[in-house]
Amino acid sequence: MIKVALDAMGGDNSPQEIVKGAVEALSKSAELSVILTGPKERIENELKQYTFDKSRLRIEDAPEVITLDESPVAAIQKKKDSSIVRGLMLLKTGEADAFLSAGSSGAVLAGGQLKIGRIKGVDRTPLATLIPTETTPSLLLDCGANVDAKPQWLLQFARMGQIYMSEVCGISNPSVKLVNIGLEEEKGNNLIKETKPLIEALPELNYQGYIESREIPHHGADVVVADAFTGNVILKLYEGVGSTLISAVRKGLMTDLRTKIGALLIKPALKKTLRRFGTEDNGGAPLLGLKGLVMKCHGNATHVEISNALLQCESFVKLGINDKISEALLKDKKIFEVNEN
Amino acid sequence: MIKVALDAMGGDNSPQEIVKGAVEALSKSAELSVILTGPKERIENELKQYTFDKSRLRIEDAPEVITLDESPVAAIQKKKDSSIVRGLMLLKTGEADAFLSAGSSGAVLAGGQLKIGRIKGVDRTPLATLIPTETTPSLLLDCGANVDAKPQWLLQFARMGQIYMSEVCGISNPSVKLVNIGLEEEKGNNLIKETKPLIEALPELNYQGYIESREIPHHGADVVVADAFTGNVILKLYEGVGSTLISAVRKGLMTDLRTKIGALLIKPALKKTLRRFGTEDNGGAPLLGLKGLVMKCHGNATHVEISNALLQCESFVKLGINDKISEALLKDKKIFEVNEN
Repeated sequence: MIKVALDAMGGDNSPQEIVKGAVEALSKSAELSVILTGPKERIENELKQYTFDKSRLRIEDAPEVITLDESPVAAIQKKKDSSIVRGLMLLKTGEADAFLSAGSSGAVLAGGQLKIGRIKGVDRTPLATLIPTETTPSLLLDCGANVDAKPQWLLQFARMGQIYMSEVCGISNPSVKLVNIGLEEEKGNNLIKETKPLIEALPELNYQGYIESREIPHHGADVVVADAFTGNVILKLYEGVGSTLISAVRKGLMTDLRTKIGALLIKPALKKTLRRFGTEDNGGAPLLGLKGLVMKCHGNATHVEISNALLQCESFVKLGINDKISEALLKDKKIFEVNEN
Repeated sequence: MIKVALDAMGGDNSPQEIVKGAVEALSKSAELSVILTGPKERIENELKQYTFDKSRLRIEDAPEVITLDESPVAAIQKKKDSSIVRGLMLLKTGEADAFLSAGSSGAVLAGGQLKIGRIKGVDRTPLATLIPTETTPSLLLDCGANVDAKPQWLLQFARMGQIYMSEVCGISNPSVKLVNIGLEEEKGNNLIKETKPLIEALPELNYQGYIESREIPHHGADVVVADAFTGNVILKLYEGVGSTLISAVRKGLMTDLRTKIGALLIKPALKKTLRRFGTEDNGGAPLLGLKGLVMKCHGNATHVEISNALLQCESFVKLGINDKISEALLKDKKIFEVNEN
């Protein structure tokens, strides 16, 4: 049985969609068990409308809620009875194997890093997000956990990303590229220039060189590696350009009768295309390298995404991803130790 | 008379579109004079089909061409007779007031920085690009000239961007924001955290805080300031997400008869909307802070953009932007000297 602590109060549609997603996931997998964290009565009220296997769902009473406008670090330190901190403590004590939240990204990231230890071999824990491309999604990491990164961290992100894409997403020998502002040898900032020789020294990594941000939407690589500042800028600009363009197209289609009729005809096809480009459809984003698993869902997650993310947590734990990450990173470290001697 | 050296061999459509653009600009302004740099005979052949004021156009023979696959710095140092180096030398010696090229960005940037001196008060010269938004364009800088930036540089970029937007683009009291990965005080990397107090200390700057990349397409600010690595990632991702989404929409519209008819009806409106989001329509991107003016046009520039960019060079020089930049930056430096004493 895989136990996932689920923040019932996280996200725009909480607790309704979160609770519904939990019930749905339980019906889909018999090996999943969920601990909902949040105000007990409120969650019990939500649960009344559903039938589910009561032996696999319990509530951990957490009367406090961390809101989006709070300082993440301060909130984590102060609100011990919040749904996020309680969920993280369940993970820390081993009562849960994973913690999932659609709440404040900052609080989930900070909480994961402050409360949960790292697995052996891991120096920093990147946030890894699947982003839509022309073809299959690419994994972008780090999306916001570790700014002012060191070359060794990026190296580890590359390796963790490769393991995640191959083991969890089933991509065989995923290609790995490093975000840079040009493809020429001499291009890049100090971080990139120092990371390049390290990453090239790992024979097991399918490293294929630099990627310019322009190529990311064209699926330039399976795993796209960046420091958290760059990664977060990429992730949010993806959303920004996409939504602006879509709304401009929609507005443009409402200008006269001719385009209005045209718009009616293309509506379903357009919706389908644009849906494929939404960033929220690819489930949860894991904070890789922590003992246990901390996963973040988009703030506007519905029951569908919550249910998918719960099942994703289950696979992650079952597949023993953390053991594989730890093993690979310790092995990589030895390569550099040998090189140094 | 404002004299602009124009790289006749730069860009995908050279020399045809470049030469055509030069002739067009000459017909639009009587105070503009153009020096085309490139292989003399080839340009003369192109010019045969046009009538123009011969007293305001001459050719500077430059038989060599710097291609896109060459290392920019090496090419600038080696190819003294290239259209780019010759153009830059005309600027350096004062024979021209500005140099415009649609050729290799790397070579134009490196050449500008290596061959042309900075104006007084300027520590680094950012590449400033107008990017499309929901409303009017925003100025993004630095788009790729100075990686591993220092806080003082970002401060100068902010000021130069403000002057450019207000003087050249006519935006009164343009708002300035700093790209960050969150709006909270504690967010950001070291560079951003160190830049914030400096930028806040300048009373004349209409600084309005941080901007997340998501808000850039929604015209979150008139002037968007970033280090060159971040700025270049933003610029190229803008192009990448835009073009991918547009091609996906187009493909989606070709799936069946219904959508094909719809597509025909909306085609003109769609084209108009998407055109507004093209990055190439906003003329040239200046490398701010150099003695004289170095301006870069998009590689696929047509005669329309070349002509517009030539007229933009004329205004820039006529308005005395460099004097205004120098004056403002020297004044700003004094503020910090006073604070330090």
